[in-house]
Amino acid sequence: MVLTDSEQLAFAVAEARTGRAEGGIPIGAALIVDGAVLAVGRNRRVQQASAIRHGETDCLENAGRLPASVYARATMVTTLSPCDMCTGAILLYKIPRVIIGENTTFSGGEDYLRSRGVDVVVLDDADCVQLMSDFIREEPVLWNEDIGEEGAAA
Amino acid sequence: MVLTDSEQLAFAVAEARTGRAEGGIPIGAALIVDGAVLAVGRNRRVQQASAIRHGETDCLENAGRLPASVYARATMVTTLSPCDMCTGAILLYKIPRVIIGENTTFSGGEDYLRSRGVDVVVLDDADCVQLMSDFIREEPVLWNEDIGEEGAAA
Repeated sequence: MVLTDSEQLAFAVAEARTGRAEGGIPIGAALIVDGAVLAVGRNRRVQQASAIRHGETDCLENAGRLPASVYARATMVTTLSPCDMCTGAILLYKIPRVIIGENTTFSGGEDYLRSRGVDVVVLDDADCVQLMSDFIREEPVLWNEDIGEEGAAA
Repeated sequence: MVLTDSEQLAFAVAEARTGRAEGGIPIGAALIVDGAVLAVGRNRRVQQASAIRHGETDCLENAGRLPASVYARATMVTTLSPCDMCTGAILLYKIPRVIIGENTTFSGGEDYLRSRGVDVVVLDDADCVQLMSDFIREEPVLWNEDIGEEGAAA
């Protein structure tokens, strides 16, 4: 049985909710290969005092060292439009497809991904928008830090 | 006393040599802020079984969570032209200047960095070229893995 895009997104949303419950930034990701979840990840800026563990990069790290042939069959699922770093990580590993929960609260490297031949799908998911909208209202300084902006509230 | 570009590069080269001595990939980085080394890092694919610890990202992780105002005064120094992921990490944090040891053995996101307003300096350093040339000859499969290519020797 093939997972729909929304079913794949659900794994990333679950990670985002876990991250928020930990006091972190609610962005989650999943790496889907051959119709199954190979790894999941979530933003760990708070939890690990990390500058590089975004949802997608944490997911790639959790997936471990993989041959290029596996990345070539993978889909990166993320609750939020990927930042420049995560856009670059997707390109480094030549992941051919990206499913994005929403790009309303933040718009990242989608056009650059497409220009490099990546198939990008934006689901405009209401739960993802709600998660991030609530978080940005509650923690504007933390959110700005995560996207490399100065800490003052928006 | 202001450090020259070559003096800054020396910190990254030392990391690259340490990485090779550990059995890893000889790419190192340093984050220079206000004329001093704030953090160093090196590729840890082998040492930590990591898919995301390249020289530059390891350096950013070692630097910890920093305000945007610190990144805005920083220079990222790296022994090798940055891959797409590390290019994106530099852009995420709006680091305004990048010093690259060499781009002969691998050419990454330099043009994209420049198109986004980053000042990129390539030193064409003979020691950096030698380090990578020796490594690629000795470990072609490992090197291909690190840049998202299939493992067969070049």
